[in-house]
Amino acid sequence: MNKTANQMLVIFGASGDLTARKLVPALFNLYKAKQLPENFVVLGVSRSNMTDGEFRKKVVQESTYLKDKVKDASLDFINTFADKFFYEDLGEDYNKVYNKLATRISDLNNKFSTGENYIFYLSTPPSLYEVIAKNLSEQGLNNETNGWKRIIVEKPFGYSLETAKKLNIGLQTYFNESQIYRIDHYLGKETVQNLLVTRFSNSIFEPLWNRNYIHHIEITNAESVGVEKRGGYYDKSGALRDMFQNHLLQIVSLIVMEPPIDASAQEIRNEKVKALKSLRIMRDEETLYNNTVRGQYLASVIDGKKVKGYREEEGVDPNSKTETYAAIKFFVDNWRWKDVPFYVRTAKRMPTKVTEVVIHFKSPHHQVFKNSDMNNKDNQLIIRIQPDEGILIKFGVKVPGQGFTVERANLDFYYSNLADNNVMDAYERLLLDAMQGDATLYARADEVEAAWEFVDPILDYWKNGSDVNIYGYSSGVWGPTNSDRLLEGDLKWRNPGENLADDPGFCVIK
Amino acid sequence: MNKTANQMLVIFGASGDLTARKLVPALFNLYKAKQLPENFVVLGVSRSNMTDGEFRKKVVQESTYLKDKVKDASLDFINTFADKFFYEDLGEDYNKVYNKLATRISDLNNKFSTGENYIFYLSTPPSLYEVIAKNLSEQGLNNETNGWKRIIVEKPFGYSLETAKKLNIGLQTYFNESQIYRIDHYLGKETVQNLLVTRFSNSIFEPLWNRNYIHHIEITNAESVGVEKRGGYYDKSGALRDMFQNHLLQIVSLIVMEPPIDASAQEIRNEKVKALKSLRIMRDEETLYNNTVRGQYLASVIDGKKVKGYREEEGVDPNSKTETYAAIKFFVDNWRWKDVPFYVRTAKRMPTKVTEVVIHFKSPHHQVFKNSDMNNKDNQLIIRIQPDEGILIKFGVKVPGQGFTVERANLDFYYSNLADNNVMDAYERLLLDAMQGDATLYARADEVEAAWEFVDPILDYWKNGSDVNIYGYSSGVWGPTNSDRLLEGDLKWRNPGENLADDPGFCVIK
Repeated sequence: MNKTANQMLVIFGASGDLTARKLVPALFNLYKAKQLPENFVVLGVSRSNMTDGEFRKKVVQESTYLKDKVKDASLDFINTFADKFFYEDLGEDYNKVYNKLATRISDLNNKFSTGENYIFYLSTPPSLYEVIAKNLSEQGLNNETNGWKRIIVEKPFGYSLETAKKLNIGLQTYFNESQIYRIDHYLGKETVQNLLVTRFSNSIFEPLWNRNYIHHIEITNAESVGVEKRGGYYDKSGALRDMFQNHLLQIVSLIVMEPPIDASAQEIRNEKVKALKSLRIMRDEETLYNNTVRGQYLASVIDGKKVKGYREEEGVDPNSKTETYAAIKFFVDNWRWKDVPFYVRTAKRMPTKVTEVVIHFKSPHHQVFKNSDMNNKDNQLIIRIQPDEGILIKFGVKVPGQGFTVERANLDFYYSNLADNNVMDAYERLLLDAMQGDATLYARADEVEAAWEFVDPILDYWKNGSDVNIYGYSSGVWGPTNSDRLLEGDLKWRNPGENLADDPGFCVIK
Repeated sequence: MNKTANQMLVIFGASGDLTARKLVPALFNLYKAKQLPENFVVLGVSRSNMTDGEFRKKVVQESTYLKDKVKDASLDFINTFADKFFYEDLGEDYNKVYNKLATRISDLNNKFSTGENYIFYLSTPPSLYEVIAKNLSEQGLNNETNGWKRIIVEKPFGYSLETAKKLNIGLQTYFNESQIYRIDHYLGKETVQNLLVTRFSNSIFEPLWNRNYIHHIEITNAESVGVEKRGGYYDKSGALRDMFQNHLLQIVSLIVMEPPIDASAQEIRNEKVKALKSLRIMRDEETLYNNTVRGQYLASVIDGKKVKGYREEEGVDPNSKTETYAAIKFFVDNWRWKDVPFYVRTAKRMPTKVTEVVIHFKSPHHQVFKNSDMNNKDNQLIIRIQPDEGILIKFGVKVPGQGFTVERANLDFYYSNLADNNVMDAYERLLLDAMQGDATLYARADEVEAAWEFVDPILDYWKNGSDVNIYGYSSGVWGPTNSDRLLEGDLKWRNPGENLADDPGFCVIK
């Protein structure tokens, strides 16, 4: 276990939802696991008027998000935790002289001996990132002469390649890239990190991990819910920006990357950038038409309950062309992956909530034995990110009885079977990493930009291209049937069930 | 399902144990599954004096081996089955003119229209094989002008290369090789046959199935019992002849063989012979010393019960040097397997009854991540022949938590999970194959001889070599510790538990 230095966590936007919902519960888990440093202070910063005590009540003692976690803890234990929290009201605007804030930070640092080690967690709209960085810098709060200073930012990292670059430059003007931590909570998931271990700690997978043995790769990210209360935000973003550009391309980079020299942040991220840069960018309309499909969910009745269509959701333009379904086929131009199609889907209002990667292997070169189901005979490695986390290999076994008929069976592994399956929440893991200065699971500027390089032309085509449809799909089905046109030959999407071992299938609206 | 022609099964040695214990229960299962041909007769032949009725009572109606199987069947159903059985007393000697037997066969053939298709099942000592073949031949009962004729023989197929050749020539003088079915009940096991399907119906295993990826291969065949009532037979045979020369080298041939052109008996057996011929024969004493260990079980107390040592068993010479434990290390001289050590063990009075194949893969070429247990980090593919039949891959997963520490987990498949897991008994499967003329799972003469070529020098060394010890081991442990000297580097035997997923370990005598 690495030692975590004494430090202060300064959260901007501390009165917002994320602080109470994600950050404080993650901190509470770390506190319970004795993983917080001896001297540790959280300073909430926001434009709300609150006292330290009110802030503590809001995010700790009276927080609904902590209720389950604290119910077995003593009042003393909870109060000791709450006592680490302080609050500073910024007043009307984030863009102001931070002298008062700087004094508060300095006072707390002196009182609690946090060694001038500060993390600034920006839980604010991205439009404020540069402003905050600038104002911190003016107070010397980016200066690492005494103690380190780190800045954590939340997605979205831009709205396009251009805006992402602007955002990066804005931050990098005041902080070094090594001080900047771009949080992608998907990278905090054990199952995502295990992609690396599966590939690089096993001698049986890596030899097969290339164009010689892999036929195609399929990634599905499905949510069963719609946009819920995020209609206003979502309608300006869409599935491609909200999920694909960040989380899914992160997963893609872990699948595509070459083995790193070692497990350091630098080496792993170098390989990930290289992977993202090798995605073949689609430039002309024909290619973009043939390899992308977008859709929007329609009103439907699921389990006897009427659900709204996307355009009827609160905050959504009734004529919106924002996609709630995106399917992208693409290729990777390097020695390992040439000509292997990648099919990546992300969508809302799917039959089930699931994220999984499916490595489809080629058929055996020569068929010695008959297969009982010719359409279903190839080996698959299914890596389930969530839920029912695990790994499943679909392989051929002999049907009991005479002759050599083959049927498909499962070799499976479930995380829940691990003796030590006390899996850290993504935010907990990522916060602790940042507190210890490990940036492996944070996105580097060049990674973010490489992802936008790939995504930008698709967004542009969808917005400005001639003859670009957005297909409606009934809520509760696996997207528009038009998405089938992406698939080569007689391929079918693998539509996963709730459980890892479920047979795939289409879900019928009830 | 292949059609099975009308036919007669003539069992020599029909009053012996095997008929009632194995053959008739297998026939009853086939009868129940409606897999016997419409016209089907069993003629028991032996030197006992019995009527048809007495024979039927002995092997069907009053057979203890059938009791469980018939308990849900109606009396009518059982009697209809029993009515297929007839008996012919050969008198004092198997070596006599078979004219009376020939007439009986002919009469039954005429009465029941079995199309002159005959299987002669020789459930007799091998010393009688040639005699019976000769006498059948003299009556024209090897003649396939009208109907086919097949002869099934049981192991042992010889006592040495020389005697095996003599046995083969003895049979081949009167029957064509294509008429001769050498039964090895291990090949009747689903899990053994599935070795072929695992290798040749999956594109993920075959690319790894060679010296580039495999470090070594380990096969363990352990029985928990001692010689029981077979002391007299066993003391003349020993572990190497009783298990290794036939069953285990059959398994070896399925692991070693190249992919066959197709699934025909001819092609599969051609490849198996080629595999057996590529085993590196050990000729000099030093090599034989370094690569073979034999042992004998000693008296012990297991679960509070005293068990006899081998030399105290009934029928065993008190100074016997017959091995009840044999461990052989060998190499395979071909492109695929050069320098990959094979470690094969077979023994009695082991801690558990188990047969399994373990493919030990090489370590990853470059270690990116730390492994929590350096001695236990390599990938393994464990193919369990019996019991708890299944396949297990030991692979590395990420230990939940910070960093990238690796621990070993299991991907597993159990036959019992198959929807159609109604696995045929080995004899049932093999009898039906012979009835249909499918010799895939029967050993061909050249296979048997190639196996003896390899085994002969070991037997000779153990008998006549200078300075050859036989090591005692307490009943209930994993053989003599001297067997460790076969293992290269810091390898350890994988000592399996009762269940496929059990962690290996040494069993302590209680």
